[in-house]
Amino acid sequence: MISIFNLEKSPPYEKFQKLYDDAIKLKQPSIEAICISSYSKNLSLVDSRFVNLKYVRENEWIFFSNYNSVKAMQFDEHNQISACMYWHKTDTQIRLKAKIKKSDKNFSDNHYIKREISKNALAHSSNQSKIINSYDDVKNKYAKCLNDENLLIKRPEYWGGYSFVPYQIEFWVGNPNRLNYREMHEMVDESWTKTILEP
Amino acid sequence: MISIFNLEKSPPYEKFQKLYDDAIKLKQPSIEAICISSYSKNLSLVDSRFVNLKYVRENEWIFFSNYNSVKAMQFDEHNQISACMYWHKTDTQIRLKAKIKKSDKNFSDNHYIKREISKNALAHSSNQSKIINSYDDVKNKYAKCLNDENLLIKRPEYWGGYSFVPYQIEFWVGNPNRLNYREMHEMVDESWTKTILEP
Repeated sequence: MISIFNLEKSPPYEKFQKLYDDAIKLKQPSIEAICISSYSKNLSLVDSRFVNLKYVRENEWIFFSNYNSVKAMQFDEHNQISACMYWHKTDTQIRLKAKIKKSDKNFSDNHYIKREISKNALAHSSNQSKIINSYDDVKNKYAKCLNDENLLIKRPEYWGGYSFVPYQIEFWVGNPNRLNYREMHEMVDESWTKTILEP
Repeated sequence: MISIFNLEKSPPYEKFQKLYDDAIKLKQPSIEAICISSYSKNLSLVDSRFVNLKYVRENEWIFFSNYNSVKAMQFDEHNQISACMYWHKTDTQIRLKAKIKKSDKNFSDNHYIKREISKNALAHSSNQSKIINSYDDVKNKYAKCLNDENLLIKRPEYWGGYSFVPYQIEFWVGNPNRLNYREMHEMVDESWTKTILEP
């Protein structure tokens, strides 16, 4: 589930709310899974991974991550990202282009204290994406953190939200003959425009 | 479903076959949905979209597209891509980095003649991703093509396969406490190496 609140009153966000509600009605599993694509300027490399989209508030889409992770470095090098979700229950795809930045600290703090201790232990124990000798080492580091209660009540500086504000949102709805419906919303001069794209 | 054949005999491809079989056993829907991320050098823009992965043969992963589409231009400008699949039934993510190129023509021809006429009509009727006045125009252009049988038996030059050969494959398997298992395979000096990554 995605926590959606105070949505911007605009055509793309009304459409988003409707498509989300349709998918929820059909019990779309992992509805919060979103593929975030980034670019390392230093390495000239496109990269991508699924994360859990936790919030959409107003026009801001938010997930949480380690700020020392590979993707964090990529966001530093190139702050434009692409994001993509696919919900098979309604054969719907949502494609976004956006600029990304760290969420404000209070928002990250508030999210952190609501999380389960077991997840926060991992935020402390893991050097995300670093090579480690074995999966047993992952488990051992984690078990150590899990016993340190002082550690777990405070959000680590290097863990928090990423907020992205889309300037382009495409809604794609599949059709058996590939006659897919594609509706593109773009922010032009601070207002949204809508066009239909060929499938 | 993905058509998998003559897989390369190597650790990442054995792992891929196993994870695929596990997901198929649990009837993972849309198992062929893969998010392809690309980069427009001219516009300094990351972009991404889901496509249907049709084949994995040997070490080549293949989907089909319009060669005049936006993504086709992006592949021309920057031939490195990232690809990502997520299967919720097994909480498994597969992340790839690869170089992409057009598939050989015979392969595209063979795939094209096996497709349903109704899909081939769309390959002919659509200027993929171009702006069009209305969805009714999409349907009208399509209806016209559907009646032209001569058109439908020949693959258009501008439609065909894209093949990508991964040089990096990460298998990510989720764990309730975020103690996710991450196994990275990388091609180094023409052979695969395997490492474990922190979650």
